[in-house]
Amino acid sequence: MIYLDNAATTKPSKVAIEKALVFNEEKFFNPSGLYQGGLFCANEIKKAKESILRNLGCVNNEVIFTSCGTESDNTAIFSVVKRGVFVTCKGEHSAVHKSFLELKNRGLKIEFIDLNEDGSVNVDKLLNFCFNNEVNFVSIMHVNNETGAINDINSIAKQIKSINSKIIFHSDGVQAYGKIPYKISNDIDLYSISAHKINGLKGVGALIKKKGLHLSPYIIGGGQENGLRSGTENVFGIKVFEYASAEHYNNLLENFNYVNSLKNEFINGLNKTNFAIISGENSSPYILTISAKGLRGEVVMHSLEEKGIIVGNGSACSSKNRFSRVIEACGYNENILDGVIRISFSAENTLDEIKNSVSIINETVENLKGILNK
Amino acid sequence: MIYLDNAATTKPSKVAIEKALVFNEEKFFNPSGLYQGGLFCANEIKKAKESILRNLGCVNNEVIFTSCGTESDNTAIFSVVKRGVFVTCKGEHSAVHKSFLELKNRGLKIEFIDLNEDGSVNVDKLLNFCFNNEVNFVSIMHVNNETGAINDINSIAKQIKSINSKIIFHSDGVQAYGKIPYKISNDIDLYSISAHKINGLKGVGALIKKKGLHLSPYIIGGGQENGLRSGTENVFGIKVFEYASAEHYNNLLENFNYVNSLKNEFINGLNKTNFAIISGENSSPYILTISAKGLRGEVVMHSLEEKGIIVGNGSACSSKNRFSRVIEACGYNENILDGVIRISFSAENTLDEIKNSVSIINETVENLKGILNK
Repeated sequence: MIYLDNAATTKPSKVAIEKALVFNEEKFFNPSGLYQGGLFCANEIKKAKESILRNLGCVNNEVIFTSCGTESDNTAIFSVVKRGVFVTCKGEHSAVHKSFLELKNRGLKIEFIDLNEDGSVNVDKLLNFCFNNEVNFVSIMHVNNETGAINDINSIAKQIKSINSKIIFHSDGVQAYGKIPYKISNDIDLYSISAHKINGLKGVGALIKKKGLHLSPYIIGGGQENGLRSGTENVFGIKVFEYASAEHYNNLLENFNYVNSLKNEFINGLNKTNFAIISGENSSPYILTISAKGLRGEVVMHSLEEKGIIVGNGSACSSKNRFSRVIEACGYNENILDGVIRISFSAENTLDEIKNSVSIINETVENLKGILNK
Repeated sequence: MIYLDNAATTKPSKVAIEKALVFNEEKFFNPSGLYQGGLFCANEIKKAKESILRNLGCVNNEVIFTSCGTESDNTAIFSVVKRGVFVTCKGEHSAVHKSFLELKNRGLKIEFIDLNEDGSVNVDKLLNFCFNNEVNFVSIMHVNNETGAINDINSIAKQIKSINSKIIFHSDGVQAYGKIPYKISNDIDLYSISAHKINGLKGVGALIKKKGLHLSPYIIGGGQENGLRSGTENVFGIKVFEYASAEHYNNLLENFNYVNSLKNEFINGLNKTNFAIISGENSSPYILTISAKGLRGEVVMHSLEEKGIIVGNGSACSSKNRFSRVIEACGYNENILDGVIRISFSAENTLDEIKNSVSIINETVENLKGILNK
């Protein structure tokens, strides 16, 4: 099997799990326990937070551990600003997109800003909207999960704050954390990350928050996470997240460059007659979205699977609609939209895997077109 | 170490983890993936749900996997009934108690029904309230996490439904699931459970819901869990939960009787001059709450810890207040409230451990009283 759906989820790191096993064995305590074992676990959570903040270059921020990127996004959107105008873009993950629709249901004003062709937000339109309206909250994702487009969120946040310093700025960083070299600037109020996208476990995410920013908890109860997220802390999952993060940050640039070379190899090998490349030139090395023009992406995906190659068709999270809402918002026609496939890499992929994959995908699509044209 | 804080959390089952490891290794896929691996994981989640429903004798209900008991409680309270009068009792876990306070903040009417001395709800007062008021939602916990009192929720729910069949009935079953022989009746609309209380992993819970009951999702996004709880499913944690549940349900009655014998051994051994027993006679075998009269529970707890015995002082989740809100609501005075200690058993505890513990606790408290009276 050649696994090329790493933006959907990644294989958990054996090393990180091994290192964290102690929290399922001797140190399985509830971090709220007032005995040594409990205090030990509470302190280990604190160390995980410090480590994650160092990775993001924002040691003065706070970390709230959550159960996933989606919960982090929900918490950011529903728990800080309670009224006014909320702005996002048409490229967001459903965790943000659907939350905005819920805000609308509740009678709040929302706005979806247009995308550029590569899936990045149209910054001029965003700034214009913020200039001409009394905006309270802006959420712009860091790396688009479908096209890999990188939004320069530090620059965007800075410009938004210069229009109105009171606007709260959130970014979904799920596809950026551990992959893209980046430091959280002082203009970013909230930033969502997830463990399982970087070889951590499913069931763990975090919301990074500027100190002093008031947030009312979204999950209410025993007052864990400084009262900001209740529920017994998933110590094992949190420690795996810390260790998997460290593995990524210890090799961030090397991995970035290596994965970029895999992506370029893939692009160069593709038969351009049959494929359109949707991901932009400056997109994340980890995501390559293409379209097998005139074919159904799902059909291509299943044919590739028979040959042992696993790719995604758009976001795994929105697998129920015919077209991807996001790629549609990039302005493509049906011919392209139908054929969308997302190839997403990890540093564990080898050059040989990439070479094989691209040759098989070329052949597969050529065959499928042959059958179609008979 | 003798671990007697199993109501706070339990040691994860090695067997269950071992059995589920495949979901971190070969089968690490995102269940939303449309390829075989994804579909396999989705189907394994389905099987986990069926297994859990069989355990609870309600195969026609639905399971929504969540990240913890707290999230399950929050979802039940905030996502089904959106207006009207909400009723609970003074014995609830903070996950319910604090959520009710939040309902009040939002302008909804709430009522906390009094407790009996053992921590069970005063059923007459509850029924009277429901009879005399237009109640929309009732939440009564199954087993009290601080005293072990068992509320006969099937009977309570039945009586409430006979007053007004439209009242939605929820129960927090976190301390009951896998421990107390029980089948969910048709009068229970919603039931919360948690994995880490029965040797599963932290970070996994579930909300059991009657089919047909409308629930708007509390965590919004990619539409996982039939649209009722978004976020990539924690397949590994869910399967550990299934397997740990099976271990408990395969031995439910044997464990119940065995743990009950441990509890009786403990009670019989206690020096009654120094201790008051708060847990009632018909309480859960798994929880024994006592008070070292005239001493501080925390001091006793720390002294026991030095001798290798881990007990809780009230709910680990509400460790920040001097008195337990719940034990106070049972009607005890300060002399008793100060000395509260919670001893909570598991089927892994041995009779020898219990004999040792009770002799050490007797001795410890005798010594502490000696020091105090000098």
